[in-house]
Amino acid sequence: MMMVVMHKGASVAEIGNVIREVEARGFKARPSHGAGQTVIGVMGAVEALSLEGLPALPGVEEITPITRSFKLVNREFQPESTVVRVNGIEVGGREVVVMAGPCSVESREIQFSAARAVGDAGARIMRGGAYKPRSSPYSFMGLGEEGLKILQEAKRETGLAVVTEVMSAELVPLVARYADILQIGARNMQNYNLLEAVGRSRTPVLLKRGLMSTVEELLLSAEYILSNGNHQVILCERGIRTFEKATRNTLDISAIPVIKQCSHLPVIVDPSHATGNPAYIPAVAKAAVAAGADGLIIEVHPDPERALCDGDQSMLPADFARLMDELRPVATAVGRTMAPSFSA
Amino acid sequence: MMMVVMHKGASVAEIGNVIREVEARGFKARPSHGAGQTVIGVMGAVEALSLEGLPALPGVEEITPITRSFKLVNREFQPESTVVRVNGIEVGGREVVVMAGPCSVESREIQFSAARAVGDAGARIMRGGAYKPRSSPYSFMGLGEEGLKILQEAKRETGLAVVTEVMSAELVPLVARYADILQIGARNMQNYNLLEAVGRSRTPVLLKRGLMSTVEELLLSAEYILSNGNHQVILCERGIRTFEKATRNTLDISAIPVIKQCSHLPVIVDPSHATGNPAYIPAVAKAAVAAGADGLIIEVHPDPERALCDGDQSMLPADFARLMDELRPVATAVGRTMAPSFSA
Amino acid sequence: MMMVVMHKGASVAEIGNVIREVEARGFKARPSHGAGQTVIGVMGAVEALSLEGLPALPGVEEITPITRSFKLVNREFQPESTVVRVNGIEVGGREVVVMAGPCSVESREIQFSAARAVGDAGARIMRGGAYKPRSSPYSFMGLGEEGLKILQEAKRETGLAVVTEVMSAELVPLVARYADILQIGARNMQNYNLLEAVGRSRTPVLLKRGLMSTVEELLLSAEYILSNGNHQVILCERGIRTFEKATRNTLDISAIPVIKQCSHLPVIVDPSHATGNPAYIPAVAKAAVAAGADGLIIEVHPDPERALCDGDQSMLPADFARLMDELRPVATAVGRTMAPSFSA
Amino acid sequence: MMMVVMHKGASVAEIGNVIREVEARGFKARPSHGAGQTVIGVMGAVEALSLEGLPALPGVEEITPITRSFKLVNREFQPESTVVRVNGIEVGGREVVVMAGPCSVESREIQFSAARAVGDAGARIMRGGAYKPRSSPYSFMGLGEEGLKILQEAKRETGLAVVTEVMSAELVPLVARYADILQIGARNMQNYNLLEAVGRSRTPVLLKRGLMSTVEELLLSAEYILSNGNHQVILCERGIRTFEKATRNTLDISAIPVIKQCSHLPVIVDPSHATGNPAYIPAVAKAAVAAGADGLIIEVHPDPERALCDGDQSMLPADFARLMDELRPVATAVGRTMAPSFSA
Repeated sequence: MMMVVMHKGASVAEIGNVIREVEARGFKARPSHGAGQTVIGVMGAVEALSLEGLPALPGVEEITPITRSFKLVNREFQPESTVVRVNGIEVGGREVVVMAGPCSVESREIQFSAARAVGDAGARIMRGGAYKPRSSPYSFMGLGEEGLKILQEAKRETGLAVVTEVMSAELVPLVARYADILQIGARNMQNYNLLEAVGRSRTPVLLKRGLMSTVEELLLSAEYILSNGNHQVILCERGIRTFEKATRNTLDISAIPVIKQCSHLPVIVDPSHATGNPAYIPAVAKAAVAAGADGLIIEVHPDPERALCDGDQSMLPADFARLMDELRPVATAVGRTMAPSFSA
Repeated sequence: MMMVVMHKGASVAEIGNVIREVEARGFKARPSHGAGQTVIGVMGAVEALSLEGLPALPGVEEITPITRSFKLVNREFQPESTVVRVNGIEVGGREVVVMAGPCSVESREIQFSAARAVGDAGARIMRGGAYKPRSSPYSFMGLGEEGLKILQEAKRETGLAVVTEVMSAELVPLVARYADILQIGARNMQNYNLLEAVGRSRTPVLLKRGLMSTVEELLLSAEYILSNGNHQVILCERGIRTFEKATRNTLDISAIPVIKQCSHLPVIVDPSHATGNPAYIPAVAKAAVAAGADGLIIEVHPDPERALCDGDQSMLPADFARLMDELRPVATAVGRTMAPSFSA
Repeated sequence: MMMVVMHKGASVAEIGNVIREVEARGFKARPSHGAGQTVIGVMGAVEALSLEGLPALPGVEEITPITRSFKLVNREFQPESTVVRVNGIEVGGREVVVMAGPCSVESREIQFSAARAVGDAGARIMRGGAYKPRSSPYSFMGLGEEGLKILQEAKRETGLAVVTEVMSAELVPLVARYADILQIGARNMQNYNLLEAVGRSRTPVLLKRGLMSTVEELLLSAEYILSNGNHQVILCERGIRTFEKATRNTLDISAIPVIKQCSHLPVIVDPSHATGNPAYIPAVAKAAVAAGADGLIIEVHPDPERALCDGDQSMLPADFARLMDELRPVATAVGRTMAPSFSA
Repeated sequence: MMMVVMHKGASVAEIGNVIREVEARGFKARPSHGAGQTVIGVMGAVEALSLEGLPALPGVEEITPITRSFKLVNREFQPESTVVRVNGIEVGGREVVVMAGPCSVESREIQFSAARAVGDAGARIMRGGAYKPRSSPYSFMGLGEEGLKILQEAKRETGLAVVTEVMSAELVPLVARYADILQIGARNMQNYNLLEAVGRSRTPVLLKRGLMSTVEELLLSAEYILSNGNHQVILCERGIRTFEKATRNTLDISAIPVIKQCSHLPVIVDPSHATGNPAYIPAVAKAAVAAGADGLIIEVHPDPERALCDGDQSMLPADFARLMDELRPVATAVGRTMAPSFSA
């Protein structure tokens, strides 16, 4: 891929003209409008020769190749950070945004209770799976659309936005009717059919890193979504699989600066799946915020021992509230903000 | 899950009676007819109490629990090895079955040339991807149905059966019209939607281990297929991801005896993806046969340097023929057979 | 191992009496004097029976087994955190202690320049290897005793304490004459001969986690040092080996809360070896402090491009000073302190 | 490093002359006499310029650089395979050499019983640790010199050569008095002090790969031994640490062809430590022989349940004898031989 960098003062007509020229040569043009400057990605098997004449067009500043395998998600292509807007909240801006709630939607009562508790503590978005990917075909698979309806009602009640997982391409339209953010789970990070489906949606996407995928593969999977037209993508580091067994997975804390350096997409951290142990979540959550994460997603359940899924790693609401209070000074220390607690 | 073991001499009527009794109590019954003995799996949240009265039914020998998380694929449930029948060939029997061909179907000419060469050398099944999962959205994705048609013609020409990948649930019926074996790629090993779809098909399935997945997770994914009704499943070890970089992945050779011990399903090995280097394929292929693999799947291309996919790891037809000649005595040494070479 | 917990008010005579009783039965007694309470470890193949009579001795509160494989390093055995005192500094107390300097001691000039720069920025301890373990026998191995002398002079000049590596048992007495902290490198974490040798020394030890070792193995290696009599041990997480190649190793940030939960020893983090890239060190260093690390060890070199060792991962003094300024508010946010900057 | 390749017919005088010339320029010369041809390694910071004039000396065929980080162990430097001679046996020749016996030397009775059993089954070398590296300081550490004496007596009794571990540099002379092969354990693969010590010895060395070391690092550690003068080195693949937990470690079967391609040193496989389970040893041992291993080292104990060390992974003598009978046809199938069984 090549990119055509336009002058800061290039006019809409000049930009349109370059796009037409690019398409006339048989390539796809993907304009990206950044802070006062437009960049046009030229996609396909482009060589320097095929763009002959373009540098001379009015408004064109320069034409340069993108060297890495990922293109649209690349910070070379778009230097300013992407901010994903969800229900009036900005993920990727100055605020560290916290998403929290039970692993799966289990009942109206539990979801409402959890949503109120995490919202009072300062979470902005509630989590809860209506469709659950499970290693065994005999495990609880979630309530399906019934679960989505419960999420919708809990949103009306609390004002919290909803992030929930979608597991197959044909369910994308249904889940998108209820969700503010479509979550792609770690096991589906390279389910290209599904990536293309959410890429055609206009709902923001939370893409979780596969537990043995490299950062580069995560960015290439995000590229599938952006190249299908959906630029509202949030990445999520949730621990990788290693030989260490003291924790469920090993959180790759360095992934935060690595991603920030080479991509403009926001990145959040899931300390619940990374550690699998609520005793370790506070330390890891604080580390994530200090390292520059744009948010956290944490499992909270009012009664972890009876949770249908992941009870072992869920925090109690009171422990979550205490953690939120500990996180705020860390966010401040690195120049970020966090929503206040609303509890008495 | 519990299982009801019937007496060797139990009648069809007695078996039917037990099934009706099991279903009357609200469980699913999954009979499995082994060598002269029938075992009926009782699926659902069964406890000892819920089967009260069953041990007294005519023809019942005993009722025992299955202790591991995987059930239908478990050798406890079915002690004799499963033999998958494909186009007159038996995978999981005495013969070591070799599948070979290019990574992707590229053209009629290349597919025919490769199929003839590997068939002459003793391969029984040709490989070739019509739909290719690629890390990057900008890579060659395969010819689609056009590729499936080429595979069908090459099968008519050479008599070789066809194994080819299916990447999404909605394509299962189409691919199954052309394929003798539906391949589930490593990245889709936990795409449960797809596993259920091939589980509802009656075409044999080749399930590749995810490069981040344990043997137990592989067996649980196979369980998804069997529990949807398709028992014709072949497992494939293709290397796991480790820190070692001398090879593309690290072949987990011990997975063969581990799987053989705890499951009745056949298992084959893919030395091409495991090593990523044709220089290492012969040693690894011989090791796999010596360790008890039921087959191999190997990438062979008449012109690797111009291959659209995985050229680096493809063998030349002449090297493949030499390898087949070296494999036969190893197969004999461990009590197995291999198809002869048909070349002059 | 069992432990005899003495009453808070137990007298020295009562403690001595228990020790004599334990030794009379053929076991080793290891008293540990915590905050107002003494615990006596009984080492050897002890069973409940062999301690019959002991619970009745004056001053004994209770006798309990230690269940985990590591004993003396276990927080069950010693609930209060160990503070290691080095040259007037406390590692494991309220202050986050920073150690910094070049990978290896290269010359008087470079060592002095680096030591002054890191000391001005608030580092308390200077690093620098006089003996370097190298994968290749043809790499620079360090200046040996000449390097130790340079460290000593730089200490006189700057007042900074010295941490430096010792690679073999017979060099322990020599290195201990110059060093305030004896470093055991990652490759030697299970060199038991060396662990025993530093265990017999009275100089504090910095034990780095092997890049292939679990947290439990790290604690067992520390146990070798403590069981030889040296309780002044600082642990160091420096990244483990995984499949991810964007960083040199993968920092296991969760190791900090895991170690803090099950051991009383202080733990520091080495972001230089963990990431191998100065661009990622600030984020990871802040994460470590936020997660509760008691210190950091960072490679700083005045001229990284000409460094004889690890130049690629060394920070420039100016970047290090900026990082120190960014770390202080993070330390404050988690209730810790850091030494001030002394530069104008 | 550069290497001077001499003509096949070069005289001793010509070779001596080149060596003098090389040393006169300040480099070390390491001649290696292969099949009818001598190669002289020139070690140090050599550049093309520094060897000016050498190509013109009588007997010199050509001068070429060695490109990889390992030199003396490199097959570029010595194309023909090294054969290590031990007590009249050749490791690295046509015969697949089997080493077997208990994990540690426990008593005269057990060692004699095990040695007789494995010798009768066709093993050539007995194993048994007198010094045992143990993760915990409280585990059985071996009998020390008493154990070495038992090994010596068992050798006299059975004629089997002895391989036993040495754990520290100062013990090398003592252990070398009793051992035919000095074993360097996996944990000590990068204990450079110890590598140098066995490098100065003239006893053959068995160097085990560290459980998270790359093949390249294994070869660099072997380079330490060769560069100190001992060229009698046997490498050992014994499993690496991965996420898979069905086996103790994951045997890297591809390491055999990788090592064979880039080094001339013999390589054997340890299926006992790789799998940690005697049920999996036969499959893995056959795989190793089929892949081209020059030998095997297997733990055999007459009474595994009472073994002081690694009982869980030891084979019974009868199972070992059966395995040896199964291995012989595999060895034949790949053009190798094995010692016959001597039992009735």
